[in-house]
Amino acid sequence: MTADTVWAQSRLVIATDGRGTYDITTEIGREVNASGVARGLAHLFVHHTSASLIICENADPAVRSDLEAFMARQVPDGDPLFRHVDEGADDMPAHVRSILTQTSLTLPVADAGLILGTWQGIYLWEHRRRPHRRTLTITVNGEAGTG
Amino acid sequence: MTADTVWAQSRLVIATDGRGTYDITTEIGREVNASGVARGLAHLFVHHTSASLIICENADPAVRSDLEAFMARQVPDGDPLFRHVDEGADDMPAHVRSILTQTSLTLPVADAGLILGTWQGIYLWEHRRRPHRRTLTITVNGEAGTG
Amino acid sequence: MTADTVWAQSRLVIATDGRGTYDITTEIGREVNASGVARGLAHLFVHHTSASLIICENADPAVRSDLEAFMARQVPDGDPLFRHVDEGADDMPAHVRSILTQTSLTLPVADAGLILGTWQGIYLWEHRRRPHRRTLTITVNGEAGTG
Repeated sequence: MTADTVWAQSRLVIATDGRGTYDITTEIGREVNASGVARGLAHLFVHHTSASLIICENADPAVRSDLEAFMARQVPDGDPLFRHVDEGADDMPAHVRSILTQTSLTLPVADAGLILGTWQGIYLWEHRRRPHRRTLTITVNGEAGTG
Repeated sequence: MTADTVWAQSRLVIATDGRGTYDITTEIGREVNASGVARGLAHLFVHHTSASLIICENADPAVRSDLEAFMARQVPDGDPLFRHVDEGADDMPAHVRSILTQTSLTLPVADAGLILGTWQGIYLWEHRRRPHRRTLTITVNGEAGTG
Repeated sequence: MTADTVWAQSRLVIATDGRGTYDITTEIGREVNASGVARGLAHLFVHHTSASLIICENADPAVRSDLEAFMARQVPDGDPLFRHVDEGADDMPAHVRSILTQTSLTLPVADAGLILGTWQGIYLWEHRRRPHRRTLTITVNGEAGTG
């Protein structure tokens, strides 16, 4: 017998307070649980080019502040190299940071839930200094079941 | 009632004029429309290690020239660090640029089309200086329907 | 007639000897062949934040040693920028390297096998200096068939 294939798609809007990483693991896990998929994949997509998605160590907050410090040195705001500056000194760096990380993530689902590693968290990374509302689409696909 | 699951797979060959970003949003959208998928995912894969895929701001061309300038500074051609130089000063930098960006992209499909953000375009990024023909495989999977 | 949809999911554990790239193309191809999927997608996910996945040129080993040299310069061990240092000088650099590359890869499947480009290999990139056991989940999804 073949299990039914389920497709579930939903939107998530995250209000950010400006540059920084926002843990969305719980929200994504909830969408996966609600989808009715027992085994398959979950896909996250952020509809912006100045915010991105990462999977990052979730235990020590210093990891994420170090990551921010690394990017600030690698892709500094106000870099005289950039000509796309109309929207501010952090605009072009936000696009570069976004391209060096991920616009989408695909994650395995088993037993009706996300199966991340122990130290893996899912983060939305806001690259602009000002607060923004960021829209994500979550698509869950797999075999129907409750685990 | 469960909608039928559709799998559509096609090839796309892009002739590049050498290093630079090539907007392929229209071509990808066309494949998605032709697939018969109403809701699901589209996957793009580039079969090369010296060209890559990015989602980038699509309004101001300066964003993409700034991006090129950033990479030229970060991963310069002719870097004395590199030993893999037989195929030219731009060969190893092309591999590094490819690895720092994406070999594949997965994008959400709804209402029988791609649902990108307003400012998101899909680009093939040619990293070699000479013109090349680049092969992509596009796989669209989802529930059948016309939106 | 619609072909049956197959979902196959398996685990792969790779024992690494410490920092470096490990070719897993054969192992992944074997899982794809065993899945019974003729046409679809294969998804690889590494359950760690200090090891990652890349698709890289597979002919000249100098490409991968150059890549390692590039990362050693870009994200050096013992960088005084980092505060997350309890687990060693290579710990935070491993997290950064992981985020600059990929935690997951999605690859096209056709004719019951992976369809990579001629020069594309799949590598697990261990970023820690000491040996580790790295767990991957492989999910293969597509139309049933033997090619």
